[in-house]
Amino acid sequence: MRFHEQVMGVYFDDLDPFHILHNARYLLLFERTLGSFWRVLGLGGMQDPDSPDRFHLVKTNRIEYLAPVRGEQEVRVRVWIERLGTTSLTFGFRLMPMDEDRDCARGERTVIRVDPETFRPTPWTDELRTRLAPWVG
Amino acid sequence: MRFHEQVMGVYFDDLDPFHILHNARYLLLFERTLGSFWRVLGLGGMQDPDSPDRFHLVKTNRIEYLAPVRGEQEVRVRVWIERLGTTSLTFGFRLMPMDEDRDCARGERTVIRVDPETFRPTPWTDELRTRLAPWVG
Amino acid sequence: MRFHEQVMGVYFDDLDPFHILHNARYLLLFERTLGSFWRVLGLGGMQDPDSPDRFHLVKTNRIEYLAPVRGEQEVRVRVWIERLGTTSLTFGFRLMPMDEDRDCARGERTVIRVDPETFRPTPWTDELRTRLAPWVG
Amino acid sequence: MRFHEQVMGVYFDDLDPFHILHNARYLLLFERTLGSFWRVLGLGGMQDPDSPDRFHLVKTNRIEYLAPVRGEQEVRVRVWIERLGTTSLTFGFRLMPMDEDRDCARGERTVIRVDPETFRPTPWTDELRTRLAPWVG
Repeated sequence: MRFHEQVMGVYFDDLDPFHILHNARYLLLFERTLGSFWRVLGLGGMQDPDSPDRFHLVKTNRIEYLAPVRGEQEVRVRVWIERLGTTSLTFGFRLMPMDEDRDCARGERTVIRVDPETFRPTPWTDELRTRLAPWVG
Repeated sequence: MRFHEQVMGVYFDDLDPFHILHNARYLLLFERTLGSFWRVLGLGGMQDPDSPDRFHLVKTNRIEYLAPVRGEQEVRVRVWIERLGTTSLTFGFRLMPMDEDRDCARGERTVIRVDPETFRPTPWTDELRTRLAPWVG
Repeated sequence: MRFHEQVMGVYFDDLDPFHILHNARYLLLFERTLGSFWRVLGLGGMQDPDSPDRFHLVKTNRIEYLAPVRGEQEVRVRVWIERLGTTSLTFGFRLMPMDEDRDCARGERTVIRVDPETFRPTPWTDELRTRLAPWVG
Repeated sequence: MRFHEQVMGVYFDDLDPFHILHNARYLLLFERTLGSFWRVLGLGGMQDPDSPDRFHLVKTNRIEYLAPVRGEQEVRVRVWIERLGTTSLTFGFRLMPMDEDRDCARGERTVIRVDPETFRPTPWTDELRTRLAPWVG
């Protein structure tokens, strides 16, 4: 499965009193990596009028924590496409140390494209489907 | 099912550019409500040496977003116990508006009690089981 | 000097690896208290078209940290008006424990009312001046 | 004046409802850049027993906001040493766009080295003074 991977920093302010990456911060690391994946796809920012597909809402987030991330460090976050539906899109995530191929966490996010006025689900554009084709299973 | 409910504020800094509660903040609202639930149970803080059960790690987080939370407001967060295992404990969550009984989001968190030295799973104390009894099943 | 005071929670996720309130979180506690102060003044939210004065930008923030806030707890945050200028407004802040009249931190924030289109400084409305009068000097 | 500069990302979750970098996030960008500056100095992490100087508390933070940072982008954060005292150390900061030498914000942070047991101010080590020498004055 083709994936996009990015190095992300874990900073002092991301650590909790146990000196480990706070459980809610994983969602941010996933989302930020997803943002760079959109740019790799050639799709602009969330407010870009030329990227109508960028206007979507998060439907579900799931994270499984496998090993604590201890202390300030860099980590690798990998994102790929699990499923492309008519109005939905599911991404898979892995968070890994820099120097070992083991998972500290795995996650999944499903988003739904919505109409910016009504917030109702609306199908992805053909352009998005074309751009995603090389990334879909 | 018996539950614990708490009013939580959604603040300007919790809102994203779409003027809705950012998806990662739900985890914090859930966790903070959980913290007050521990106190209702008569169990101290995370570093309280008299509360050995407080030393646990998050194993999974799941959130389903049902309706955006728009703008600064107060919301109700409800937490209850889904399952109590030997070393695990699963909480259910709902986030609701102040004035309507509908869900903006539902979630689930499983934690594992670990040994503070080895970080290995270790059974919950009998005291915790006794305190949780009125909230289970 | 007349002030507005609010009880705010310090949560697990606000603590840093030293088990104290992270230095950047004070700004959020100040800002959130300021938000409730605006409501006390009878002024709506940031996007309220009937509250044109709510559209303003932060010009400066200053914080002096006097004593660490250790562990999860409630604190009191006090806000008052230091200075009202033509287009600027300076608030003073204190963060105090629940049960003692000593300062853990003191701060100051200056905001500038701006035009929502041009982002240029623009004078406060007479309505704001009237509402603030009992709180100024 | 010799400085250390680092590129930092501004992400979707850093933006507020006005689509600009939230005022409290600047402190995090400054602190994270400071963390990388400590590493440039050859000094380890906050909990490194070989870096006794890393145990210090923030005494003051000041930020002046000069121009909003609009939307997701990369920015440059520059840090340098303003003053080295017996137990204190003051850093200066600038936040700049990637492609122009103008300031979006300027800041200053003073930290105090403290004894990890008593939290009392204690003089910086000679090793720190030696390492900082090329950056002072």
